[in-house]
Amino acid sequence: MQHFTSVHDVADPAALVQSALELKQSPPEDLLSIGQHKTMVLLFFNPSLRTRLSTQKAGLSLGMQVMVHNAGQGWQLEFEDGAIMNADKAEHVKEAAGVISQYADIIGVRTFPSLTDCERDYQDFILEQFKTHAKVPVLSLESAIRHPLQSLADWVTIAEHRPAHRPKVVLSWAPHPKALPQAVANSFLEWMQVADMDLCLTHPEGYELAPEFVGDTPVIYDQKRALEGADFVYVKNWSPYQAYGQVQNQDARWMISPEKMAVTNNGRFMHCLPVRRNVVVSDTVIDSPRSLHLEQSNNRTWAAMAAIKELLKSQ
Amino acid sequence: MQHFTSVHDVADPAALVQSALELKQSPPEDLLSIGQHKTMVLLFFNPSLRTRLSTQKAGLSLGMQVMVHNAGQGWQLEFEDGAIMNADKAEHVKEAAGVISQYADIIGVRTFPSLTDCERDYQDFILEQFKTHAKVPVLSLESAIRHPLQSLADWVTIAEHRPAHRPKVVLSWAPHPKALPQAVANSFLEWMQVADMDLCLTHPEGYELAPEFVGDTPVIYDQKRALEGADFVYVKNWSPYQAYGQVQNQDARWMISPEKMAVTNNGRFMHCLPVRRNVVVSDTVIDSPRSLHLEQSNNRTWAAMAAIKELLKSQ
Amino acid sequence: MQHFTSVHDVADPAALVQSALELKQSPPEDLLSIGQHKTMVLLFFNPSLRTRLSTQKAGLSLGMQVMVHNAGQGWQLEFEDGAIMNADKAEHVKEAAGVISQYADIIGVRTFPSLTDCERDYQDFILEQFKTHAKVPVLSLESAIRHPLQSLADWVTIAEHRPAHRPKVVLSWAPHPKALPQAVANSFLEWMQVADMDLCLTHPEGYELAPEFVGDTPVIYDQKRALEGADFVYVKNWSPYQAYGQVQNQDARWMISPEKMAVTNNGRFMHCLPVRRNVVVSDTVIDSPRSLHLEQSNNRTWAAMAAIKELLKSQ
Repeated sequence: MQHFTSVHDVADPAALVQSALELKQSPPEDLLSIGQHKTMVLLFFNPSLRTRLSTQKAGLSLGMQVMVHNAGQGWQLEFEDGAIMNADKAEHVKEAAGVISQYADIIGVRTFPSLTDCERDYQDFILEQFKTHAKVPVLSLESAIRHPLQSLADWVTIAEHRPAHRPKVVLSWAPHPKALPQAVANSFLEWMQVADMDLCLTHPEGYELAPEFVGDTPVIYDQKRALEGADFVYVKNWSPYQAYGQVQNQDARWMISPEKMAVTNNGRFMHCLPVRRNVVVSDTVIDSPRSLHLEQSNNRTWAAMAAIKELLKSQ
Repeated sequence: MQHFTSVHDVADPAALVQSALELKQSPPEDLLSIGQHKTMVLLFFNPSLRTRLSTQKAGLSLGMQVMVHNAGQGWQLEFEDGAIMNADKAEHVKEAAGVISQYADIIGVRTFPSLTDCERDYQDFILEQFKTHAKVPVLSLESAIRHPLQSLADWVTIAEHRPAHRPKVVLSWAPHPKALPQAVANSFLEWMQVADMDLCLTHPEGYELAPEFVGDTPVIYDQKRALEGADFVYVKNWSPYQAYGQVQNQDARWMISPEKMAVTNNGRFMHCLPVRRNVVVSDTVIDSPRSLHLEQSNNRTWAAMAAIKELLKSQ
Repeated sequence: MQHFTSVHDVADPAALVQSALELKQSPPEDLLSIGQHKTMVLLFFNPSLRTRLSTQKAGLSLGMQVMVHNAGQGWQLEFEDGAIMNADKAEHVKEAAGVISQYADIIGVRTFPSLTDCERDYQDFILEQFKTHAKVPVLSLESAIRHPLQSLADWVTIAEHRPAHRPKVVLSWAPHPKALPQAVANSFLEWMQVADMDLCLTHPEGYELAPEFVGDTPVIYDQKRALEGADFVYVKNWSPYQAYGQVQNQDARWMISPEKMAVTNNGRFMHCLPVRRNVVVSDTVIDSPRSLHLEQSNNRTWAAMAAIKELLKSQ
């Protein structure tokens, strides 16, 4: 595996899920030697709690040296080729990525979308520039349009609770006061589409995700109908792709409540966190034993460990 | 020991002092194995120098993985149960504490008081919410009303310099341009009350500490009289508990000067740092060999190590 | 070696270069034991990418515990002796350096010049105060007037590409939109003067460096003439020493272009980074195989490792 930035980087996603489960259930005795004498730099252009701690822990548990750097605290980076750098950007990504490649065996990058420049965001411009100029594997810690470590952990969590039958998995939009990225939703679709799931998507009209991510996944605008018989209800707010980055709908009727969960197949609630309680989901649902949100965040560590292990193999 | 957030969490405080002294004087050969494969997350809602470095060093020296997170740099946390989170708080402490509990075997929390909402501060609201929702031991790195790692280090320092007789220990208020928490003073009283000390407290009228912390400790409003015959002079500014968080007095005559120290029993000067020189204490006093301020900060490492060791035992 | 803050701290600079090269080419098997049970605190008063990551990596690779602290995120330090600290400074460097000396076996300090108070900057006031009050070796991570780890790495890089003849090394000023420190240029001169190089300096009139750093190094105001026959072209912007910290010249004709490089002896381009592309140097030059900028940054790790190893020996 050259990089870990989307499901397309992974030759066998189901095997990677299996690898994470094995690392969790029976970590090898020589765990600390897997990453010995290897260094990982985690570069944060945006805030992070779960990703920062779980990826750092994954690296340390593999015996790596892990260095965390808040890229936003220093100077700004230039990402445009050929730029005449006489304004506010002090360093080009060519140098930043090239330099860090000499200190690191893996570079983790966390970057959010602008939510104003759709074209550039959907080129995943910043992440791609790092991939172009880094000389070592790039590990996405969430990019403008994807959050693959989250999706891998989500799949691991579903695998742990998989019923005997082919599970029905619903990705449902929910309201939120702020304009959020589409990354988690995009990525979840992408990973679930290659898993053996009965997947559907529900959201208000106008909140369609980018066609390249929706693919053949059925879209049902009636949330209740979509939730009927669901085994897993994955909830997430996102801002529209068409009316890019605008907040057009805060309809509280889309919040996940016990009434919504009642039509599911005793379904499990899932959310990537952070979550706005009583806006996205009611306390009753998230505090119930059917909620998997903490297990998802726990599985972030094992997902990261599996991905890092794979990246180290390729070296 | 389930948590380390006040002297009341400690079954035998004198034994913990003894443990810190032993770790300092003759660290066991297997020190690095005590915390092996264990992770500590240190969460800072407020700035810190000594606590951050000494607690991090204590964990690393015990062989732990230590991850430091500046909580204030990301999103704000919601602490109220049942809140409809549609404003500025992006994540509830239920999730934050629950998630970190899965990455950490110990969670350290640093949080300051509001100094405006006395009732909430004195419930130690933020720390208690972490204790409620964390699934692993919580280590206080200073809370709204207590600083137990500091007090433990202070006791260790006094133990190292203890005279043959029962020592007289004076906690004296001193002036300061800003409104400071009462945490260090509260905590020092609490720990000294269970140690075998001749303890008294001196401050201007209006600067009474909370009755629950003062207890039976004698209060003497005449600083010079209080200092007479003192073996240890512990100096600290705090803002009033009654006129909560206001600066009512900056009387420079309360500064600790050589004249003040002259009435003591060749007393030792103590301060938890950071200290305002020539406002709280004159250069002459703090730069004299009778000052223990650097030894106190050194003992922070051993105090933290002893507390962490005890918390790890309980797991 | 008591401290590492300038070439004058190093008994045998050429031997230190050799030590860095050996660490790079054939690291000893017991590398991790060199710094075992030792702690390094890296204190940043200013942003840093290369220095932060390479020095941290150097310490970790030697088996040290490394703690990185952003000093600017907490309270401000007082550096003046005898100050009455009743304004905005919460802690004196006497305490800060004294305290950290108890947690660290080496203290790294990064601090920039004011660029307004030339006298104080050229006393290297902040670094010197740390040297005075620290009880352990101080490692400069760039100070107001010097950047010795950079210069050591530069020398290592030149040594790796040294031609058979005594190389001609040119330090050339280049334009920049902002007022930058003189530290890198000062330090480069200082280290090259003790190396066996044919060194000269070129810059516009008015951009003279401080006489104590220029020494006997020839100054040639005609950039092209200076570059003739150069084996190494070290490029850097700095603000004037005389018209202290002002931007007086942004003449684009001083930018390093292929035409400039054409008059050299197939010279190597060098820059310490971060670099403003197409302002300081054209893309064509820095992207050519004759540019050593990434090798210089790589050598920062080995330079830091050699310096730290030497500091640890002295303990």
